[in-house]
Amino acid sequence: MPEKIIPDIVVGRLPIYLRALPRMLEEKRRVTSSQELGERLGISAAQIRKDLSQFGEFGKQGTGYSIDYLAEQIRQILHVDRVWDMAVVGVGDIGSAVARYQGFSHRGLRVAMIFDSDPAKIATQESSFTVKDTKTIKESIHEAGIQVAMIATPSQVAQEVAEELVSAGVKAILNYAPINLTVPENVRVQYIDPAIHLQRMTYYL
Amino acid sequence: MPEKIIPDIVVGRLPIYLRALPRMLEEKRRVTSSQELGERLGISAAQIRKDLSQFGEFGKQGTGYSIDYLAEQIRQILHVDRVWDMAVVGVGDIGSAVARYQGFSHRGLRVAMIFDSDPAKIATQESSFTVKDTKTIKESIHEAGIQVAMIATPSQVAQEVAEELVSAGVKAILNYAPINLTVPENVRVQYIDPAIHLQRMTYYL
Repeated sequence: MPEKIIPDIVVGRLPIYLRALPRMLEEKRRVTSSQELGERLGISAAQIRKDLSQFGEFGKQGTGYSIDYLAEQIRQILHVDRVWDMAVVGVGDIGSAVARYQGFSHRGLRVAMIFDSDPAKIATQESSFTVKDTKTIKESIHEAGIQVAMIATPSQVAQEVAEELVSAGVKAILNYAPINLTVPENVRVQYIDPAIHLQRMTYYL
Repeated sequence: MPEKIIPDIVVGRLPIYLRALPRMLEEKRRVTSSQELGERLGISAAQIRKDLSQFGEFGKQGTGYSIDYLAEQIRQILHVDRVWDMAVVGVGDIGSAVARYQGFSHRGLRVAMIFDSDPAKIATQESSFTVKDTKTIKESIHEAGIQVAMIATPSQVAQEVAEELVSAGVKAILNYAPINLTVPENVRVQYIDPAIHLQRMTYYL
């Protein structure tokens, strides 16, 4: 594939397309169209065609997309045709829920280790993991070659944790702490903050 | 304020600006600039000025923004200068975490009732709530006049739950189930799915 710069907003829609496809397969479908996919997702068919065309030709005019093939192609584009080990920092309500979450399998992601700074939690069992001391983040994550992490700590320590993760080699951080993180340019951060999503909707009420 | 149509992408940035401001007040700051806010958030100063100018004049050229005043104005714009009662459907890991979450206070949001369909959970205590039967969604939510809800159920029932919520008068849904919902045009949905956020980043790895 030629190395062209794809707008991040387009990249951001690919996981949404990908999520819809296995569901169609479950319904014993084999082929879909940009129209059908668009109706399911509330995205225009033209947008979907334009997005996908940035990466190549995945369907034939008039015959639609092979669902299986399209899913496999999107997995390759997003690099989730392999499994990424992830570290979770912070074993509160969210950290525990994430450690137990079954929804990552088949989506190219897997929690591999979890950390907390609380002496009462370190070395205890949480789901199938033994909680590690956050003091060992740098060494443990570097040694395991982990590049993806989730921060589920209180806001006050999230920036400090992010810096530890970055120094350990992490390049992608999903941050559940309700605070903006400052990271080097070669590191990506995504945010999950329910209040942010909710306030975006209360505007319209 | 004149009723002009503001792009949703602009609306979506306001909660991010708003989140940063109380933190500055904690640091005993009184005034900020689009430059400073931009540096904290990784958004350009020009973008922030342009976004805010859509809603009026909040600062004076050269003197910056009064943090307190700007926060209050954004709260009014987003309608979170009041408190919105919310319903949570699904008392699994995520639903329980949300019910216990302390981060909604001071952000204009409050969990008011929680529902589950599991007879083993109905009528039990979860945080400070007695779990209600999902069969009573329509009546309970309508009676309380609740317009905001969170879905934290398994994917299989999320669409059905969404339809119940909409028929009860809900106009804004935050959906944690990893599935796209189909709702009427006057209802807003936002999605939280960690795998979607993570796959958007693995693209760059």
